[in-house]
Amino acid sequence: MENFTFYSPTFFVFGKQTENEAGSYVKQFGGSKVLIHYGGNSAKRSGLLDRVINSLKKENIPYIELGGVKPNPRSGLVYEGIDLCRREKVDFILAVGGGSVIDSSKAIAAGTVYDGDFWDFYSGKLIEKALPVGTVLTISAAGSEGSPDSVITKEEGMFKRGATGNAIRPKFSILNPELTQTLPPFQTAAGITDIMAHLYERYLTNTKDVEVTDRLIEALLLTMKQEGPKAVKDPNNYEARANIMWAGMMAHNNSCGVGRSQDWNSHDIEHELSALYDCAHGAGLAVTMPAVFTYVMNHDVMRFAKVAVRVWGCQMDFDHPENTALEGIEAFRHFLISIGMPKNFDELGAKEEDIPKLVDVLCNGNGRTGSLNGFVKLDEKDCTEIYRMMI
Amino acid sequence: MENFTFYSPTFFVFGKQTENEAGSYVKQFGGSKVLIHYGGNSAKRSGLLDRVINSLKKENIPYIELGGVKPNPRSGLVYEGIDLCRREKVDFILAVGGGSVIDSSKAIAAGTVYDGDFWDFYSGKLIEKALPVGTVLTISAAGSEGSPDSVITKEEGMFKRGATGNAIRPKFSILNPELTQTLPPFQTAAGITDIMAHLYERYLTNTKDVEVTDRLIEALLLTMKQEGPKAVKDPNNYEARANIMWAGMMAHNNSCGVGRSQDWNSHDIEHELSALYDCAHGAGLAVTMPAVFTYVMNHDVMRFAKVAVRVWGCQMDFDHPENTALEGIEAFRHFLISIGMPKNFDELGAKEEDIPKLVDVLCNGNGRTGSLNGFVKLDEKDCTEIYRMMI
Repeated sequence: MENFTFYSPTFFVFGKQTENEAGSYVKQFGGSKVLIHYGGNSAKRSGLLDRVINSLKKENIPYIELGGVKPNPRSGLVYEGIDLCRREKVDFILAVGGGSVIDSSKAIAAGTVYDGDFWDFYSGKLIEKALPVGTVLTISAAGSEGSPDSVITKEEGMFKRGATGNAIRPKFSILNPELTQTLPPFQTAAGITDIMAHLYERYLTNTKDVEVTDRLIEALLLTMKQEGPKAVKDPNNYEARANIMWAGMMAHNNSCGVGRSQDWNSHDIEHELSALYDCAHGAGLAVTMPAVFTYVMNHDVMRFAKVAVRVWGCQMDFDHPENTALEGIEAFRHFLISIGMPKNFDELGAKEEDIPKLVDVLCNGNGRTGSLNGFVKLDEKDCTEIYRMMI
Repeated sequence: MENFTFYSPTFFVFGKQTENEAGSYVKQFGGSKVLIHYGGNSAKRSGLLDRVINSLKKENIPYIELGGVKPNPRSGLVYEGIDLCRREKVDFILAVGGGSVIDSSKAIAAGTVYDGDFWDFYSGKLIEKALPVGTVLTISAAGSEGSPDSVITKEEGMFKRGATGNAIRPKFSILNPELTQTLPPFQTAAGITDIMAHLYERYLTNTKDVEVTDRLIEALLLTMKQEGPKAVKDPNNYEARANIMWAGMMAHNNSCGVGRSQDWNSHDIEHELSALYDCAHGAGLAVTMPAVFTYVMNHDVMRFAKVAVRVWGCQMDFDHPENTALEGIEAFRHFLISIGMPKNFDELGAKEEDIPKLVDVLCNGNGRTGSLNGFVKLDEKDCTEIYRMMI
């Protein structure tokens, strides 16, 4: 195991009706003027925004609103939010939504107290200072509610890039599984896929002797395998939603990923797809992961065999472990299809002829220098081959 | 799943040589005058104390020392520490040791800033204010490095009781697995048993639909089952020590125990043994748990069958699940014996004739009212029977 530090100071409030406590937590964490940041109209229509606003009113905390965050959140709205927060002297940002809203909130929080262009953070600069952020989560997927990360897409060039820093870890996150019950099955399944991707990206490591984190990742994958289909089949299954919601946080706060190298090639390869086609990140991952895993499998056959046996229930082929490894990847692929995820470029809305452009932005855009450096080093030729496997 | 809150703000620093960073973390978390609290002479002899002191000197942080913490830490030394901290105007407590040292440090931290008798907290009062505590952990066992809990024994009456409160969660904890390599096999095994007890006490729940936490607990039990014997056999196995150390923290920071009722009857029943005979807590638990589990098994046979199959690799007896449940308990018992733990009263140094006294203190002492209320409600008759099963 490698040396590491781990810090997850977010205060989690989990369970039914907990969004009504948002105001008291804003107060507890020092907010005196709040920006409520949210996405489309569903938060308004469902009454969620009203409940959150009422909880602020009860504490006499003034607020302003900024809606309009889209999936794959854009830099334009972030700049708008930063201006607004400075003008209105906002000192706390309350994200009401899913990963996109939280990521946009984190970007605004960091940018408001930064003299330069906030995009610096998405080009590699560590975020060391930010306004405090709280969240009311409405989708189990990104894990942004417990992570130090944010992903934003820059309109100019359609670069989708990440930033990180403990300063943007939410002060509190309110996780009410009821709020996810209104999600349609496709969005639910895309969230499940994203959570499983966060687990696989950590599982694919080159660090030896990491049994504790291997086991924790497998535990969360097994949870998703068992509870995921229940939530897709019956959106009102509170218990399945609750199990998924806690698994989604644990999958990405990094307690199961410490002390080991991680992959993240699948995320990088997918980011170009959702940036260009504006598809759901989870849907893009569903098409990307089986292709990437099949391509890199021989780098460590026993690791793929291990997840196949322990998570997917495959029988170990002791004479030909590669058969077991492949069987596990296929089991994962079929699981994703069974919950309604797309299986290829066509179903995703991606186009074969765009592959050269995808590969170029992926490998050379915005600071990259010709390759991805995760579990396996992938150059332009590798990435081209992987995209071709998704056709 | 039940509603819950979860908060684990400790900054963890994990890996080789990290004790040399203690001073810089004390500074980062605001300490300007430190009490170094430790146990016997091993911390001095090994040079650990010197390394920690050097790290404080490097930051020009003045310190005083208070050693002498014994296993099953006593209230007497806590009172002494409180006096010392007040007199010397200490504002940060640095625990260098295992769970006993950390628990004693937490008690001093809470007592120093409290007007009344610190024992109030160990009689049920929530700890809401304390001096900041940092830790340099030397034993994987108690999980106190990441928990809001502390257990102290009051000499007068030999009551062993716990206190809790987020205020005593360590600000930082330094976890260097190398420091555990000097532990003799018996202490290592007792620590492993304590960690597994923290997991079983959470596993035994009456809450339904808690797959995510069930799976996380199983993952950590599987880690202990695999890595534990390696560390007992070869004390210098750094990788096994590292896996155990992170598992020990995760087992008790409650991320795997949220949203569910928990047991803790085994801990309560054991506490009377280590209070009276001053045996190692883990050794007491090794004798206690199999007896308790066998006694309560019929309350939820399928839960015991589940852990038997998923952790102990038993084949499910679908016609007679109680056979599988019992087989799992026996597998656990044999595991504990195989790593060198005692199996009965005799090996523990406990005496049959003390049972009435043990049961009386257990069920009626220090605020208890005739029974324990964990996974199963246990009255004096039940507890007598359980102690008799350990003879």
